[in-house]
Amino acid sequence: MKDLTIFNSLSRKKEIFKPLVEGQVGMYVCGPTVYSDVHLGNVRSFVSFDIIYRYLTFKGYNVRYVRNITDVGHLLDDGEDRVSKRAKLEKIEPMEIVQKYTNGFHNMMRIFNVTPPSIEPRATQHIIEQIEMVQDIIDNGYAYEMNGSVYFDTIKFAEETGKYGELSGRKIDELLQETRDLKNQGEKKHPSDFAIWMKAAENHIMRWNSPWSEGFPGWHLECSVMSTKYLGKTFDIHGGGSDLKFPHHENEIAQNIGSCNCEPARYWMHGNMLLMNGRKMSKSDGNTISPEELFTGDSQHVSKGYSPIVVRFFMLQTHYRSTLDISDEALLAAEKGFSRIKEARAKLDKIVAKASSETPTDKEITSLLEGAVAEMDDDFNTPKALAKLFEVVPKVNGVADGKISAEEISASTIEKAKEIFDGLLIEVFGLQYDEASDGKEGSMDILMDLIIDLRQKVRSDKDWETSDKIRDKLIEAGIQLKDGKDGTSWTMN
Amino acid sequence: MKDLTIFNSLSRKKEIFKPLVEGQVGMYVCGPTVYSDVHLGNVRSFVSFDIIYRYLTFKGYNVRYVRNITDVGHLLDDGEDRVSKRAKLEKIEPMEIVQKYTNGFHNMMRIFNVTPPSIEPRATQHIIEQIEMVQDIIDNGYAYEMNGSVYFDTIKFAEETGKYGELSGRKIDELLQETRDLKNQGEKKHPSDFAIWMKAAENHIMRWNSPWSEGFPGWHLECSVMSTKYLGKTFDIHGGGSDLKFPHHENEIAQNIGSCNCEPARYWMHGNMLLMNGRKMSKSDGNTISPEELFTGDSQHVSKGYSPIVVRFFMLQTHYRSTLDISDEALLAAEKGFSRIKEARAKLDKIVAKASSETPTDKEITSLLEGAVAEMDDDFNTPKALAKLFEVVPKVNGVADGKISAEEISASTIEKAKEIFDGLLIEVFGLQYDEASDGKEGSMDILMDLIIDLRQKVRSDKDWETSDKIRDKLIEAGIQLKDGKDGTSWTMN
Repeated sequence: MKDLTIFNSLSRKKEIFKPLVEGQVGMYVCGPTVYSDVHLGNVRSFVSFDIIYRYLTFKGYNVRYVRNITDVGHLLDDGEDRVSKRAKLEKIEPMEIVQKYTNGFHNMMRIFNVTPPSIEPRATQHIIEQIEMVQDIIDNGYAYEMNGSVYFDTIKFAEETGKYGELSGRKIDELLQETRDLKNQGEKKHPSDFAIWMKAAENHIMRWNSPWSEGFPGWHLECSVMSTKYLGKTFDIHGGGSDLKFPHHENEIAQNIGSCNCEPARYWMHGNMLLMNGRKMSKSDGNTISPEELFTGDSQHVSKGYSPIVVRFFMLQTHYRSTLDISDEALLAAEKGFSRIKEARAKLDKIVAKASSETPTDKEITSLLEGAVAEMDDDFNTPKALAKLFEVVPKVNGVADGKISAEEISASTIEKAKEIFDGLLIEVFGLQYDEASDGKEGSMDILMDLIIDLRQKVRSDKDWETSDKIRDKLIEAGIQLKDGKDGTSWTMN
Repeated sequence: MKDLTIFNSLSRKKEIFKPLVEGQVGMYVCGPTVYSDVHLGNVRSFVSFDIIYRYLTFKGYNVRYVRNITDVGHLLDDGEDRVSKRAKLEKIEPMEIVQKYTNGFHNMMRIFNVTPPSIEPRATQHIIEQIEMVQDIIDNGYAYEMNGSVYFDTIKFAEETGKYGELSGRKIDELLQETRDLKNQGEKKHPSDFAIWMKAAENHIMRWNSPWSEGFPGWHLECSVMSTKYLGKTFDIHGGGSDLKFPHHENEIAQNIGSCNCEPARYWMHGNMLLMNGRKMSKSDGNTISPEELFTGDSQHVSKGYSPIVVRFFMLQTHYRSTLDISDEALLAAEKGFSRIKEARAKLDKIVAKASSETPTDKEITSLLEGAVAEMDDDFNTPKALAKLFEVVPKVNGVADGKISAEEISASTIEKAKEIFDGLLIEVFGLQYDEASDGKEGSMDILMDLIIDLRQKVRSDKDWETSDKIRDKLIEAGIQLKDGKDGTSWTMN
């Protein structure tokens, strides 16, 4: 197996990836908090880690991929639980909110062809284990109870272990300074301390018994617990969006070390943000688009709808650690690019190669194909891998169109090209251009072309009986025809 | 709202349904144990309760529908946990098994157009609440601990409350007789006692701390806990397959009464079994078919594949309390029947009614339509409701074909027919014949019927040019025709 390098947020550099157990990878990625529809920025993050999961599998690793569902404990700035607040707004039970938005999330992941993780644990499924970890942290002296809530003592932890701030680059002096500056910090000893168990207010619905109070676990805690439960105390990769680096991931590390004196993940990976038209997406100033609006084109920000597969392709044209800037222009270009590469792949099936031994063209193509895979070994560089495949496209087109002689290419090169195109585009990038459903849609178009032609013919033949039959069957099939000056088009109910 | 009657398994008779809170219904249905692919018998059961859920909603009730996922504690006869055993076989972590088969289950429910429940709790998500209920039952004297496991004392409960056996009809004398007859019953005081908490064997992976041992909750217990948590101690409807009546549901009732001295559900509903060719489905004698085999036709038991929507329609032609006998002949008939009713519905859109006041035909049709809905009020009698709609079909066809004069029917009757057809067929029966994806497959069938007809016509007209065009376009669309003695069939690449 060729070496894979990964940019480790912890060391801030690229490192050669060495899993703890040869051939096996344990990977944890922070999943959604299911209190609202998944937004496009989340989708990008889950697509990025889907590619990482798929590529690790493609390389031959046996990957256990854990991505959680946060259904409790993720608080808003005003201290209210996100799920509870939404439940109050929608006037239903919190678990109905959880169900509704979990279904919606799963549905969107399916639409974007994101592979389900090996295990998708829910926070509320691990309250016992969370209570146990809180107790371990208290026993180790890194947490204290106050009025039924339990807080992680960041200053004590930082002073004793020197480990707080390693991921995010926050300095202990700054933390201490904050402590001196701020007087009003409620029950916490220091402003940087965070709750790992919260006493529930009287009207709070989601609550469980614990040694400290009826309450609920802290959001940071759940990921520490679930990664430990399903991947062990120390595991290979932990991923998430860059917005989770601080405080969420910093606190996860503190909790894991605080409970077992061992570091959790060896490689921390962070995906970058999604922008639109060069700016942060934001509902308040209208610079936002939902996945659904992107598909239907029902938004001022796009000139038309884009299929999920095109959006996925578009996302892969930027490296996961770079900001991705979404715009109509870029989407249109991606749509064209995706068509070009699909067409080239289709042409590969038709080429009859005639070279009897390796030619310079063979060498050039082989080098590009191998280069595409090598780019993936360089911290999952999807845009560069795609660029290499795009360099193969004119060669394929040239041979297919007769501009390059079939004598200049060998059958083995064509086979290799098919293998790498399908391997990267389908298996790793998840761009299932060959799937039945796509096929069916294409076939419908062709059949409808035929029927519109036949209808035209029977009408000019004045065969009204057949014409009526066509009309009736189309109604039955739920299809409407529209005769316009550019011919007849059709839509389906 | 018209009265709805429900056959209550508890009273063994039909009763008028009165929810605890006007306009609101709480319904709990036992979900799957996610350790293997969902089989067709399960599908039938979940389709039945889907119809019940949909019809209650259609009638205007606000329904909270809870259907659980059993991911721990459901033991095999040899006492091994089903999920754990499968995990050993597949050599993966139990929660990976849970994830795999939960995904598979959700996927199959989606294919069969079964509405997701309002809340889908998992057993492992409620270990704390299960421990609490075990403690309540011990405190009330109806359970005893033995070597770290806790058993429900059926005899004491039966003697003191007279409530054990009410649902299944088992008699206390029989239970006592069994106790006297059987000496070897392990840790249990009586053979009818059952575990509500089990001490985990050393090699058992799924385990939690409890006051009695590291162990796991009993299967019966989890449903008592989850129904209580999300619907309250007493709620409206509890459903499940008839195979769950004893011991599962009987023990649920005992646990609920044993913990809170109140009965859980007021109406117990049980779906009946699925047979094939008149016999019980069984893997060992080959009398079995999976949903996938049914769709593809890849089974000795069917002559062709059937679409999920046809299978769903087929299921509705039998009442949920009757055994449903699946056979190729019956499926073929269902497919034809479903086409007939779809065609009639499509014709309704084209009819221009001309009667100016109510006619005898109007009266007859209205009475059938209202009768169809009334049948649903009679314990959800889907086959009788469908039969009433089928009686409307020849009337619609008659008017559409001109055999019944358009003067004999009023526009309001046509509108009512559309409303009831769509209300029952789409909203209640979930036969989304008009949906994009399902619709597309259905539409393909209709378009291909049309093309095969037109091909036949141009061939008998010796119009070889058009015939060639049809041939070429079908090749382009990836469709093969096969001329047989029963006509022409088609398949797609």
